[in-house]
Amino acid sequence: GCVSATPVNASTPNIIIMLMDDMGWGDLGVFGQPSKETPNLDKMAAQGMLFPNFYTANPLCSPSRASLLTGRLPVRNGFYTTNGHARNAYTPQEMVGGISSDEILLPRLLKKKGYVSKIVGKWHLGHRPEFLPLEHGFDQWFGAPNCHFGPYNSSERPNIPVYNNSEMVGRYYEEFQINRKTGESNLTQLYLQEAIGFIHQQSLSRKPFFLYWAPDSTHSPIYASKRFLGRSRRGRYGDAVMEIDDSVGQILSWLSTLGIEQNTFVFFTSDNGAAVMSGPNESGSNGPFLCGKETTFEGGMREPAVAWWPGHIPGASVSFQLSSLMDLFSTSLSLAGVSPPNRTLDGLDLTPVLLNSHPNNTSLTDRPIFYYRGNQLMAVRLGPYKAHYWTWSNSLEEFESGINFCPGQEVPGVTTHVQKEHTMQPLIFHLGRDPGEKYPISVLSMEYQTVLRRITPVVKQHLDSLFPAAPQLNMCDLAAMNWAPAGCETLGKCLKGPESLPWKCEWPH
Amino acid sequence: GCVSATPVNASTPNIIIMLMDDMGWGDLGVFGQPSKETPNLDKMAAQGMLFPNFYTANPLCSPSRASLLTGRLPVRNGFYTTNGHARNAYTPQEMVGGISSDEILLPRLLKKKGYVSKIVGKWHLGHRPEFLPLEHGFDQWFGAPNCHFGPYNSSERPNIPVYNNSEMVGRYYEEFQINRKTGESNLTQLYLQEAIGFIHQQSLSRKPFFLYWAPDSTHSPIYASKRFLGRSRRGRYGDAVMEIDDSVGQILSWLSTLGIEQNTFVFFTSDNGAAVMSGPNESGSNGPFLCGKETTFEGGMREPAVAWWPGHIPGASVSFQLSSLMDLFSTSLSLAGVSPPNRTLDGLDLTPVLLNSHPNNTSLTDRPIFYYRGNQLMAVRLGPYKAHYWTWSNSLEEFESGINFCPGQEVPGVTTHVQKEHTMQPLIFHLGRDPGEKYPISVLSMEYQTVLRRITPVVKQHLDSLFPAAPQLNMCDLAAMNWAPAGCETLGKCLKGPESLPWKCEWPH
Ligand SMILES: [Ca+2]
Ligand SMILES: [Ca+2]
Repeated sequence: GCVSATPVNASTPNIIIMLMDDMGWGDLGVFGQPSKETPNLDKMAAQGMLFPNFYTANPLCSPSRASLLTGRLPVRNGFYTTNGHARNAYTPQEMVGGISSDEILLPRLLKKKGYVSKIVGKWHLGHRPEFLPLEHGFDQWFGAPNCHFGPYNSSERPNIPVYNNSEMVGRYYEEFQINRKTGESNLTQLYLQEAIGFIHQQSLSRKPFFLYWAPDSTHSPIYASKRFLGRSRRGRYGDAVMEIDDSVGQILSWLSTLGIEQNTFVFFTSDNGAAVMSGPNESGSNGPFLCGKETTFEGGMREPAVAWWPGHIPGASVSFQLSSLMDLFSTSLSLAGVSPPNRTLDGLDLTPVLLNSHPNNTSLTDRPIFYYRGNQLMAVRLGPYKAHYWTWSNSLEEFESGINFCPGQEVPGVTTHVQKEHTMQPLIFHLGRDPGEKYPISVLSMEYQTVLRRITPVVKQHLDSLFPAAPQLNMCDLAAMNWAPAGCETLGKCLKGPESLPWKCEWPH
Repeated sequence: GCVSATPVNASTPNIIIMLMDDMGWGDLGVFGQPSKETPNLDKMAAQGMLFPNFYTANPLCSPSRASLLTGRLPVRNGFYTTNGHARNAYTPQEMVGGISSDEILLPRLLKKKGYVSKIVGKWHLGHRPEFLPLEHGFDQWFGAPNCHFGPYNSSERPNIPVYNNSEMVGRYYEEFQINRKTGESNLTQLYLQEAIGFIHQQSLSRKPFFLYWAPDSTHSPIYASKRFLGRSRRGRYGDAVMEIDDSVGQILSWLSTLGIEQNTFVFFTSDNGAAVMSGPNESGSNGPFLCGKETTFEGGMREPAVAWWPGHIPGASVSFQLSSLMDLFSTSLSLAGVSPPNRTLDGLDLTPVLLNSHPNNTSLTDRPIFYYRGNQLMAVRLGPYKAHYWTWSNSLEEFESGINFCPGQEVPGVTTHVQKEHTMQPLIFHLGRDPGEKYPISVLSMEYQTVLRRITPVVKQHLDSLFPAAPQLNMCDLAAMNWAPAGCETLGKCLKGPESLPWKCEWPH
């Protein structure tokens, strides 16, 4: 390739993190989706590095996103609940909490080197004023604080606001339409234009930038723009994927047009596994993996992942490095030349892997992956082995009411409908031979004993040195909802909420 | 690319069909195998055309292989049984039958244009003298007539002979070792050398050739050569895949070295889905699909498939054409300029797809895929829809004894343990939205009614015009086993069999 005409910021490359919502490992052509409808992402992989062993930090939106921006597990950054054992929690409108002021987010750290940061799309780290992106280091924001769930009118509950920087500019299903029947919405196009506009501005200002691009069209209710609706071989979900794929292609193409592609690190991944409980029309694919979103099986936490940085990351390469969404925190700091903050981090600097310069980096080769539900360590991966200390899909009550986290799949003793403890004798799988977690290794085998001896001290060290933060996702209150976000006066869109009456949020799974 | 220095046979390109044994759709990196250990096959796909909707003709070895070479469904070429309803049958040693002399095999037809044909590896169309490859149009053979099952010594049953052309040169587990404990065997290397040697000879003789390359190391018991054992991230099965991948790379590379790559059509696929009932150490992956070998779910019959012909087939292309192993018969005849035989064929000529020259070919766009078990039509695919008229995995009795054709998977009412008839109201799936066959479309929906109206006449026409051949796989006899194959005298390896005492073979599933 050609050398960029403007290599002004060689020591502070631009950073783009593209974080998808509920997209599964198996949703990309390059990861085996049979309809092969992601030509731009597949090309991105062909020009970059593919990570088949990349994990999110939690099988749910909010905690994963908090982990990305803090480089820390939810149990450390407070994005969890103690209202029940091993429960997934997030930030619905009723949520009182959000990202703690004790946490230092990536954009705040990047500011030390002059980065201008923008988030486009879903935030999900709390919607009350003190939790919003511009309070935590982002310079710009276009998007929404919560998921695009209904009520679809602002009757008993407010619709979710869409913000432009620190003020709302409308609400979903009002100014920002998502047609529930046809699935039509132009939101992904808005998010694309916001991304390209920002990149363009920053390339003119010649300041390094951090773009956190977080479209949410692949989260139920699924939506796509008119020209993508009906285009996919796999229904509306596929339409949404095709629109995102097209957008990724446009963003990468813009980087080349602007001559900054060799100065811009781009990473594409997803916040949790495909939400297979939502059925075929409203969810994606976890490929050969077990279960999906909400679970600590591979389908819940293994994510599609592609790194791209022409001239730096070797093209058409595959890294089998066990890696995590939290690594993007440490990696971004490393790329920008910013020292990590003085606190426990769970992410690792992946630049030795990305730049192919790791002779004997045992912190990378021996790194474990921890799978949590709430503050319960459910499982650990070390090398090709995964040990489950607790198994749970969801409760029998939920399951019998039709909520199925593992549709079409059932592994006796593994996809359990009770919280089953295995701490004395973990279920161990070899994820190379058995990526689907179907065949626990016999506890009587030499292999089991050898693996257990290796994993046990890793788990012990992790738990012994763990100091959980105060849980931020315990309290709910109808008064906390998005009744009157900043800017509502100007728009005449303020709503009146009820008196404050907090309760302990219920997290069923 | 460069133009070949010796384009002698532009109208009669060489043809190589690489048919794997029990390899699943999900076993190739390009189809999403997480360990991504097939760089040569992935490169073949990058230089050729990928077929994500390619099907075998039957979920079992023998009938599929008979269909490939006859271009006809097993029910037409006789490779089925009527000893039970909807039973899979093949050619174990006890089998009296084999390929009928009424059938005309591909190499016999190619001979009209001067092709020299060789089969390397597993035959499986009958082991009695009249059924062997050289009796049916092949000029050369190196390999075995049956699977490499034991007895592992020639005590009560003879070990399977390995042939060089029309005479045996030894037996499995005797002259041709497969170490059952370590999995070590150099058979794939022998099959590679036989392939390369043949290609080399034929390129010197300047006669067009047909090479049917059928290694069987991915069929249980899995084996690999010493230098591949332990190399894979996915155990012994992965070792075997890596050795085959390496061999494919060497064969393609040899074609280039000999300057005949632009004159050689190569197609890679498999005879049936991964044998997931054999567990993680002895079977591959069907990716996101349901069940595997022996079944008419997608995991049993959808196959990895790559076409390669530099300068003719566009590189890095994907065809979503519904296509079949039997199409390779018709396609090969078309490539060689041989008229199809005057009989009903189930294969179609794929050259319009391969050479990207199909304006409005409705026979291709509207082509159905038929899924049979024995002589029972179980299911039909038309466009993205698949209708199941009968569902069955295996019997409850077998299942409860530990034989599981769908390990870790269970779709109520679909993966049934009784033969369940749905002919009045077929189960219909949309394989785009729901590749895993988990969500039958509601019979009350408009979509169901529309699809049923389209599929019904296709099925009726197929069944009305079907004249089944006499079943060849009904009778078994211990006297029919490989006691004294041709050439055994020279080797001193003739064994004495029992008196003939035929019985109706039992096919449990
Ligand atoms: Ca999510
Ligand atoms: Ca087979």
